[in-house]
Amino acid sequence: MTRQELLTRLALRNDRRIVLLVLDGVGDLRTADQPRTALEVARTPILDDLAARSALGRLVPAGTGITPGSGPGHLALFGYEPDSPGADIGRGVLEALGLGLEVPPDTVVARGNFATVDGDGLLLDRRAGRIPTAEGERICRLLARRIEADGGVLGDGVGVEVHAGEAYRFVLLFRAADGTAALEPGLADTDPQQLGTRPLPIEASGGSVAGGSGEAAWETARRIGPVVEELQRELRAEERANTFLLRGFSWLPALPGVDELHRLRPAALAGYPLYRGVARACGMEVLDCGNSFGQALDRLEQCWADFDYFFLHVKGTDMAGEDGDLAAKVGVIEEVDALLPRLLGLGPDVLAISGDHSTPAPMKAHSWHPVPLLLWSECCFVDDCARFTETEAIRGAVGTIPSSELMGLLLANAGKLAKFGA
Amino acid sequence: MTRQELLTRLALRNDRRIVLLVLDGVGDLRTADQPRTALEVARTPILDDLAARSALGRLVPAGTGITPGSGPGHLALFGYEPDSPGADIGRGVLEALGLGLEVPPDTVVARGNFATVDGDGLLLDRRAGRIPTAEGERICRLLARRIEADGGVLGDGVGVEVHAGEAYRFVLLFRAADGTAALEPGLADTDPQQLGTRPLPIEASGGSVAGGSGEAAWETARRIGPVVEELQRELRAEERANTFLLRGFSWLPALPGVDELHRLRPAALAGYPLYRGVARACGMEVLDCGNSFGQALDRLEQCWADFDYFFLHVKGTDMAGEDGDLAAKVGVIEEVDALLPRLLGLGPDVLAISGDHSTPAPMKAHSWHPVPLLLWSECCFVDDCARFTETEAIRGAVGTIPSSELMGLLLANAGKLAKFGA
Repeated sequence: MTRQELLTRLALRNDRRIVLLVLDGVGDLRTADQPRTALEVARTPILDDLAARSALGRLVPAGTGITPGSGPGHLALFGYEPDSPGADIGRGVLEALGLGLEVPPDTVVARGNFATVDGDGLLLDRRAGRIPTAEGERICRLLARRIEADGGVLGDGVGVEVHAGEAYRFVLLFRAADGTAALEPGLADTDPQQLGTRPLPIEASGGSVAGGSGEAAWETARRIGPVVEELQRELRAEERANTFLLRGFSWLPALPGVDELHRLRPAALAGYPLYRGVARACGMEVLDCGNSFGQALDRLEQCWADFDYFFLHVKGTDMAGEDGDLAAKVGVIEEVDALLPRLLGLGPDVLAISGDHSTPAPMKAHSWHPVPLLLWSECCFVDDCARFTETEAIRGAVGTIPSSELMGLLLANAGKLAKFGA
Repeated sequence: MTRQELLTRLALRNDRRIVLLVLDGVGDLRTADQPRTALEVARTPILDDLAARSALGRLVPAGTGITPGSGPGHLALFGYEPDSPGADIGRGVLEALGLGLEVPPDTVVARGNFATVDGDGLLLDRRAGRIPTAEGERICRLLARRIEADGGVLGDGVGVEVHAGEAYRFVLLFRAADGTAALEPGLADTDPQQLGTRPLPIEASGGSVAGGSGEAAWETARRIGPVVEELQRELRAEERANTFLLRGFSWLPALPGVDELHRLRPAALAGYPLYRGVARACGMEVLDCGNSFGQALDRLEQCWADFDYFFLHVKGTDMAGEDGDLAAKVGVIEEVDALLPRLLGLGPDVLAISGDHSTPAPMKAHSWHPVPLLLWSECCFVDDCARFTETEAIRGAVGTIPSSELMGLLLANAGKLAKFGA
């Protein structure tokens, strides 16, 4: 019996409420040049008070030394182990889910960038001058009309849908027409990641893809390739977005939802598409809210009675980390601290504050370092840690555990797990 | 997907250099009679300074409570999990590799001791009075002539090779002659570990051996037994080395090398045969160097440009621990400390200092206790630990992790791992 199976077997329903507040990329570094982390620098009276009444610990997102993307980082926080089937959700599917699209099984999704090529077909701009969203939407309508003209099916039985995203981004959904062999997502990116070269043709990636076989990928490439070329030709007359690049071919993994696995009524309050997409893939109800923590709290207050598990996502910490801007990261943490009383005022039975991974300002990127965790409940074990920081958390009562074990700990603190064995 | 498969998938090549300095058996104990460990007693200004700029932690070599031999201890440091196929390399193969011999697949290797029996065939000395190496070599030539006389194949199609080692030690390599069934290594030691008794005959060990089947072992025993007796008879006229004992029957496991698994250019700087053997089995280039740390540093300086992963082995800490000599262990640590500036002067991008296991002086043996780890890189996370000691390491930023996870951590710190997932 795996841990997941055991947790499902022990699941109890009750009306206690769990809040998981994810400060994206909150973990930071002490280095020779940056002697204190963002959490150490920040003035956080509310968090300090909470830490003194809580258990601290550290979460390892995807295994020692492994730097996770946002997908695996969040899936782990929701209880999915890094090596569980489907836990490596592709970027295409994440983008589509984030746009609020339904992604049926057997649908291959790619994330698209509109781009600019010169008269010889060589790349001038991989993002088509970052055209505004309205312009991207207009071009997507162009492509949609072309697709509609053929009844939604192009080439050798390839059903296609196009959906605009933000700015120069869009997604393409491919699905085998009735009576034809299924498509599969083992295709390489067509983005050469380099200007002055041609976009790459559609080819099988050769790598192994969970759930897909190598041969089927070659067959898929043979069928999708001409369709993509046909759509690219449709844009030749455009000034800036006169072609497109595709990345992150993927399909929706068959993830059992956290509702089903843990008998939860889960809600997600996240503004950014990617996180909304991951939450939806995990069976959460994704609620409309803006991009700010204040807006998420507004929504939380409204729907407090309707769910018993709330995932709240704060993006600013990660963005500041990616920018290498320690002061900005400190600022976001202090803003969250100032608003925390509103969250505490709702009286959650279990509150966890952590991150999906570290995004240390000195590295300007995600990293593998353990992320500090603050866990409060009436039975969390009040340890000796005085502040919510990386270093204090080393000696916290929770210890250093895989992120994927957090879900079980939250359920336990909420009394949502029966005893194992007699 | 296993952790190993994930690491391989994420492997990136760059020119940053990793140094793993293994102080064999460095971990020690605090007991009622020995209130401070060797690392605590030693005066180590360089290590102290380094520790203040580093992340500390602890490595568990083979699982809680498991005391590893040198083979599993080092394999874990090189990233092989204790239960991965082939990670339990036999002593015979290690000895042969350490002598610089090629060990082809399907070759069964045993480590031999020349020994002395009395007129009744009862053991008087299990090491033949520790005859000098030249004497051991002479006797090996005797055996080799006997083997050559039969064209290298004795008995029922058993190809045999003999190679002298140090003092009373040698190795025998057995390989099935063309057209005969393969041999396999599931044979018991012939050393009864007791004087006044007869050497044991060749028999199947009955235990399971990775890659071998029980029945094949009985068949191998039937074929090898008479060959061994024939070779033993050849020594009857010798005064001291008038027979031999065989131990550690084994073959070379099919280990994928760290070069292949992690896209490294790995080099080993180790003086003693066993460690050279393990490194070779892991795909490292084993460089000639003496037995001292100073000599290893000489060689390291010469070949710094040619590799990006260096395993340096210091044996003295383990030898002193085995002797129960705390002062000697302290002395070795202080010698290493004094020479460390030469290593630091090369400017490694990642430096790890640890041991393959603990060899506490009060126990005079290997033990299961976690081994302190010092990890330095620009992004290691500078924690609050002031010295490289067992007790400080408990609260280090790396935490307490399996030794087999160290490799991934080193690769991460060297920027040699791509991000996992989008």
